[in-house]
Amino acid sequence: MFEQLLTRPLSEKMDQQAPYDDIVVSTRIRLARNVTHYPFSTRMTEDQANALINETERQLSGLKGFQFGRVDQVDALTRTALVEKHLISPALATHPRTGLFVSEDEQISVMVNEEDHFRIQTLLPGLQLEEAFRVAKQVDRLISERFKIAFDDTLGYLTTCPSNVGTGLRASVMLHLPGLVLTNQIQGYIKHLRQLGFAIRGRYGEGSDASGRMFQLSNQRTLGASEDMLITDYQFAVEALIEAEQAARKGLLEMYQEELEDRLYRSYGILKSARLITAREATERLSDVRLADSLGLAVTLPPNLFHHLLVSLQTGFLQKHFGKQLTSRERDIERATVIREMLTEQTNRDHTQGGFA
Amino acid sequence: MFEQLLTRPLSEKMDQQAPYDDIVVSTRIRLARNVTHYPFSTRMTEDQANALINETERQLSGLKGFQFGRVDQVDALTRTALVEKHLISPALATHPRTGLFVSEDEQISVMVNEEDHFRIQTLLPGLQLEEAFRVAKQVDRLISERFKIAFDDTLGYLTTCPSNVGTGLRASVMLHLPGLVLTNQIQGYIKHLRQLGFAIRGRYGEGSDASGRMFQLSNQRTLGASEDMLITDYQFAVEALIEAEQAARKGLLEMYQEELEDRLYRSYGILKSARLITAREATERLSDVRLADSLGLAVTLPPNLFHHLLVSLQTGFLQKHFGKQLTSRERDIERATVIREMLTEQTNRDHTQGGFA
Repeated sequence: MFEQLLTRPLSEKMDQQAPYDDIVVSTRIRLARNVTHYPFSTRMTEDQANALINETERQLSGLKGFQFGRVDQVDALTRTALVEKHLISPALATHPRTGLFVSEDEQISVMVNEEDHFRIQTLLPGLQLEEAFRVAKQVDRLISERFKIAFDDTLGYLTTCPSNVGTGLRASVMLHLPGLVLTNQIQGYIKHLRQLGFAIRGRYGEGSDASGRMFQLSNQRTLGASEDMLITDYQFAVEALIEAEQAARKGLLEMYQEELEDRLYRSYGILKSARLITAREATERLSDVRLADSLGLAVTLPPNLFHHLLVSLQTGFLQKHFGKQLTSRERDIERATVIREMLTEQTNRDHTQGGFA
Repeated sequence: MFEQLLTRPLSEKMDQQAPYDDIVVSTRIRLARNVTHYPFSTRMTEDQANALINETERQLSGLKGFQFGRVDQVDALTRTALVEKHLISPALATHPRTGLFVSEDEQISVMVNEEDHFRIQTLLPGLQLEEAFRVAKQVDRLISERFKIAFDDTLGYLTTCPSNVGTGLRASVMLHLPGLVLTNQIQGYIKHLRQLGFAIRGRYGEGSDASGRMFQLSNQRTLGASEDMLITDYQFAVEALIEAEQAARKGLLEMYQEELEDRLYRSYGILKSARLITAREATERLSDVRLADSLGLAVTLPPNLFHHLLVSLQTGFLQKHFGKQLTSRERDIERATVIREMLTEQTNRDHTQGGFA
């Protein structure tokens, strides 16, 4: 049932222009919720877990524009591709007895039996914290009408892990920060943001490195403040990072124009001509070209195509696209082919529109 | 007076298609000659050296289609560019009191007061040993009619260095051997050829490295054999190298097609997009692209354009072209610019002729 989600790397919504999409790739809001009549997931029996999935399917199946599927019953390749598309978390892909509700426009998903019974998630392009939060709350209300949610008047929402107790709210934005990486400022910002109580990590969350100079910034605090206060604090942190990145890009161009242009144009030349490329190199070079475009150099890689490629070049998505397990070598070949085709298409679009060569 | 020689990196003759030009860039024949009424150059006084130059100018000035100039009286940049164009030897560029006769088509040059009084040189594109030798002998005869040449009935032509005694003949071809370099066979061939009495060295002769995978193969033996025998022996050695290079290219393509194509196309992409490039990198990447073209990949870098670029991207020529001393950084910028322009022009020619994109 997830096949149609994987026919393209970006949903229609994610493929649109969005605020600050020069730096902010996407905004995600996640709400952790648990129902009172089941133990927390760590304590659930197999039967209880299945029962919750079945009950959820029954309760939510009436929602218009949503579809439901069991994640534990699809193959590993599909699960990997769902993670790469950020429709599910890496954790959900490995847990037994899991389900997923997802809206047709792919903006909203509800993971069942992740760390909490429900993880409500909204995903929007660019920086759209308020809108993402508004949508998440709508889904939260729909679920609350159908389930008795574990809530304590003093503590707030109860969750499996104490770190989520309170609002159960996590806001995350994915930022493209080549300026801060190339000027070696990123480590300082990471340290500073952590001291302020934010988490900042590489692209696919915990444990992965920041390949492609993509960083995910999230709030850590969920307790002792209202949702609105948390969102406002978080928005300040994101805006500070955006400003720092803008300043770093400007500084790079002023101080090292020739080296920078050489590096960025070379990356473009390599992407347009390579026949073998690893995910790591591809991501880094695409980051270079995105930066080049944003600095006004004579190449075009709009934010949505950049994002599109970042998703479609991942191992799972690439294999899903080619409909089979590929060796590492085959993936490097297909990845290079996909990039060349996409960039050539973009060049042709530019020409048609009278853009750059 | 040498200015017009430096308006373009290749003479009209060198810019034409030639036998084996897929591997052999150029053929050079040099004859060392000395006149009897002056001491060898190592023993000459300043006055004698000037007198020889003046006498040579007088004697040869009547030759149609030749021009004469004093090399020691032009600036260092011009001398460097003349070396890069192979019109003079590196030695002539540094000696005091030196002259040069050169034919309008630049195929023939006579250096005065190099290691020997005269060094007659013919330079042709591709593999053209017999033709180059024929032309050199014509010039040799013209000079012999005007000067009494030092010749011993037993030893043959007498020269400053004993290694040139006998025929005074040195044949050199410049070979582009990326196949033997990339398959790590080149060191074996160098050793073998040296054992057989040939010299093989990097592109600008003694002391320089083989950047761009260009090698100069010369005969070492000049004594105890006729000119024809020397030329025949030498031709065999060159043909053996050509065959080995052809086999190596074929083998590379069979064994490592994907890696090879990736490498060669990347080099093309980089050359088409770099904004800064060193002479060393440029030469190596041009070698890659030439190889790609010769293997039938979808890029075009014909032998003459390759050769043209090899010359024009050298430090001296580049500065000569821009009419001023450039910093290393400025050279890297101009070099990258020249390459981009030339390759773009070539692409446009290909399109016009319905060739590859």
